[in-house]
Amino acid sequence: MAHEHDGRPGTRRITPRAEPGAKKERIIRVAVDFFGRDGYEPTRWADVAAEVHIGSTALYHYFESKQHCLFEIMSRTLDEVLERFDRIVASHDDWTAALVDALVASFDLTDEDVLKLRVLTAQHGRVATPRPTPREEAARQRARGRKRELELGWAAFLARGMEEGALPQSDPKLLARALLGLYNSVWTWYRPGGTLPLPEVARFYVGRQLALLGLDPALADARLETFARA
Amino acid sequence: MAHEHDGRPGTRRITPRAEPGAKKERIIRVAVDFFGRDGYEPTRWADVAAEVHIGSTALYHYFESKQHCLFEIMSRTLDEVLERFDRIVASHDDWTAALVDALVASFDLTDEDVLKLRVLTAQHGRVATPRPTPREEAARQRARGRKRELELGWAAFLARGMEEGALPQSDPKLLARALLGLYNSVWTWYRPGGTLPLPEVARFYVGRQLALLGLDPALADARLETFARA
Repeated sequence: MAHEHDGRPGTRRITPRAEPGAKKERIIRVAVDFFGRDGYEPTRWADVAAEVHIGSTALYHYFESKQHCLFEIMSRTLDEVLERFDRIVASHDDWTAALVDALVASFDLTDEDVLKLRVLTAQHGRVATPRPTPREEAARQRARGRKRELELGWAAFLARGMEEGALPQSDPKLLARALLGLYNSVWTWYRPGGTLPLPEVARFYVGRQLALLGLDPALADARLETFARA
Repeated sequence: MAHEHDGRPGTRRITPRAEPGAKKERIIRVAVDFFGRDGYEPTRWADVAAEVHIGSTALYHYFESKQHCLFEIMSRTLDEVLERFDRIVASHDDWTAALVDALVASFDLTDEDVLKLRVLTAQHGRVATPRPTPREEAARQRARGRKRELELGWAAFLARGMEEGALPQSDPKLLARALLGLYNSVWTWYRPGGTLPLPEVARFYVGRQLALLGLDPALADARLETFARA
């Protein structure tokens, strides 16, 4: 996703009347791009405003600060991750089929998805610190809550696998943390457009996630074939 | 490690003449405590200065900024991790014995060690962004270099295990990243004084690390017994 340079000298563009919410979506898309590619800390909030062609007063209508926008990005990313996880778990009667589908689908991502996961992983620690203003604090608590829901959702799912005898017994909460920790570590080094294609990363990591769970690493091979061809 | 309140009203303390370097060590110890417990972002550099009873001019002699100090903490932590890893690998003829020792020893940590690992893990992304001043930039490059050395050291060690037939074949560089990623994820949630004692965390994670590598998770059980009793 390249930055849009619709304000570049020499180009002119008739901006259509924005729908309500469209501006906010655009701010978030541009912020994901900056935070995900250049990093959150080096990005100045004014750079995002300039890219979206919005003044600081109008920007404040949507977000109080760079960090407020960050929390919103984190919550939305976790919303998407949770929605996909719940949908996959609900769509399978067989526990192992649901597991394989959930693990592989976690790597079926657009470049923008990857940037969001990079931001989420790199800045996860910020959800632990209370914020001084009500809007920021509400956004922080929502992001923190969604993060916990994802951990609890995985822990409950793993516990079900243990009850059904499909997964070796262990502490489901610690196991969920370990599984998510291994997954999140990918986004500390993987960047869109890197030398390793995402289907190869998926093949390697899903095999290692299955091994970590005490299952056959080849369980997902057939599902990974479909993924790589898509 | 409690903050030392040697400047608390009502207490007086004759400060012995500091040895050269002692002040710097104290700044680092206090910064590790603040960054590791409260977080790097919410800690103000002035809070560290106040705790060490040092003026901003004198502080600047040691560190140009909070971030400069952070890079020094990261480098030192990685120095210690690398030193331990190299020592353990050199002290075993048997590859598997070296692996088990290296994995278990990574959890044999003081509270201060844990805080350093929390800081290292939470702020790892900052080593990717060039800094504007020569001192900060040199500190950043050193931290980044040590991080790479650790990854390369593990990759070389895992490749040796594969050559010797002690470890199933796979990509040693990706496997090193996965193994370190799983390990680092512990320090995103584990805090000194939490409900789960460190030997229990070690037992769980070392087993999962061995499984991830495709080895018997029980390989380290005897070594873990010694660790838990120590």
